[in-house]
Amino acid sequence: MNDPTDHKDNRAVFILSDGTGITAEALARAVLSQFDVPFRKVRIPFIDDAEKAEAARLLIETEGARGKRPIVFSTLVKPDLSAVVRRANAVHLELIQTFADLLSAELGVVSAQAIGRSHERPESGTYRNRIDAIHFSIEHDDGQSHRDLGSADLILVGVSRCGKTPTSMYLALQYGLNVANYPLIPEDFQRGTLPSALKPYKHKLFGLSIAPERLSQIRNERMRDSRYASIDNCRWEVAQAEKLMQREGIHWLSSTTRSIEEISAAIVQECDFGRKE
Amino acid sequence: MNDPTDHKDNRAVFILSDGTGITAEALARAVLSQFDVPFRKVRIPFIDDAEKAEAARLLIETEGARGKRPIVFSTLVKPDLSAVVRRANAVHLELIQTFADLLSAELGVVSAQAIGRSHERPESGTYRNRIDAIHFSIEHDDGQSHRDLGSADLILVGVSRCGKTPTSMYLALQYGLNVANYPLIPEDFQRGTLPSALKPYKHKLFGLSIAPERLSQIRNERMRDSRYASIDNCRWEVAQAEKLMQREGIHWLSSTTRSIEEISAAIVQECDFGRKE
Repeated sequence: MNDPTDHKDNRAVFILSDGTGITAEALARAVLSQFDVPFRKVRIPFIDDAEKAEAARLLIETEGARGKRPIVFSTLVKPDLSAVVRRANAVHLELIQTFADLLSAELGVVSAQAIGRSHERPESGTYRNRIDAIHFSIEHDDGQSHRDLGSADLILVGVSRCGKTPTSMYLALQYGLNVANYPLIPEDFQRGTLPSALKPYKHKLFGLSIAPERLSQIRNERMRDSRYASIDNCRWEVAQAEKLMQREGIHWLSSTTRSIEEISAAIVQECDFGRKE
Repeated sequence: MNDPTDHKDNRAVFILSDGTGITAEALARAVLSQFDVPFRKVRIPFIDDAEKAEAARLLIETEGARGKRPIVFSTLVKPDLSAVVRRANAVHLELIQTFADLLSAELGVVSAQAIGRSHERPESGTYRNRIDAIHFSIEHDDGQSHRDLGSADLILVGVSRCGKTPTSMYLALQYGLNVANYPLIPEDFQRGTLPSALKPYKHKLFGLSIAPERLSQIRNERMRDSRYASIDNCRWEVAQAEKLMQREGIHWLSSTTRSIEEISAAIVQECDFGRKE
């Protein structure tokens, strides 16, 4: 599957996996980000038999014949499958096997060379826990439900559109945490207190804040030229929310320059949640 | 951050990152799954200065002094930071730098040795697109809204609790796709047609099915001993849903033995969505 935006003269990078390819892709992105060179990615997931490996080999050969030597990021570990792929003329980077070989020597045991699992099995307890966390977090998005807040691992608070919802979903999906989120709204600032439903759970609260300029830009994408999106209103709301969080002793961090992956990992670290596994 | 469930005598595995550690963790999991040996994971994200690198080195040394030589999975690429960590007596696996060095030779350019980004920057278009997709997918969870279905990239259908919601969230988060999901319910089976709101969007529909035994088990966790969760009812609903999808020409796959990551990657492959980037 090619990215339509990729230019066809760029060097081809193949991302091969016997599974979803998600781990291979994340590592490939990190490695390629070290080079200021344009690449064109071709993803081939679910290579779990010799026929699919052969099809991948052919694609790599075809690309190589048309231009520069392709680069292959592969998480294939079954020796028969990777042997097929390696016959293609390319730079082969074996993401799992490289390190499994190194560890094998240290541990004094041979590696299983079985299809590598970077995700949990659907029947595992950890996996069920993640699925339940997603349902919990959707049910408790945007202050929709006060029910069962006692089961929340974490309650995110902050002004509307500062990043609470996507962060909640990511924490549920990646870390299996039950995350509720509550907006802080002008009524709360006028009263000068937290929403009353949250008061019994102060120890579970974590705040997000954001630069008013960025907030105004995000809100304008949805509701152009509204009072809600105006820079003056955004400045006021952010200042009020930060004042309220400070007074209530709620830790917060800014989402302005952080991705949801970064916000989530920082929260997990700060709250000292072990991953539930 | 240690996992409380890990036994303290197991060999320590450190997962070090200058960012979130999510990519390092996924690859470490895949590599370690090749060995039938118990490990104890210690995660140290956000190592972005010499002081934090030194703190990590100390922790590794302390672990090593207590027992077996620790294993270090690291995505650190800044030479000054990785040099500090490498002074610890451990097996050092450099997840990014190992491959950046190999590529550097092939590309004839030196790598930036800059902090590696496996996630997008929050100000990028791709990132905003993912955030918007999460909001879209939550708004269109469980048939909640018919509004703006024209903007959906994909509409998942299937019986209640077959995995539509978590799959929708994952597709939004990971691939930036706008995914609505609609339950197929007994009323639809009695009428023998799709919900009318979906008819204009038949080309966007993708089905999920599930083994009735698994479905009954999942539903029983929520509503024990209900008719909804009974194996007879689950058998009937699944058979009806599959019949309806077959008649309407809707492709589907089974979620029974697949994780949401696997279901999502399979859908993306089958529907030939390029990742929006």
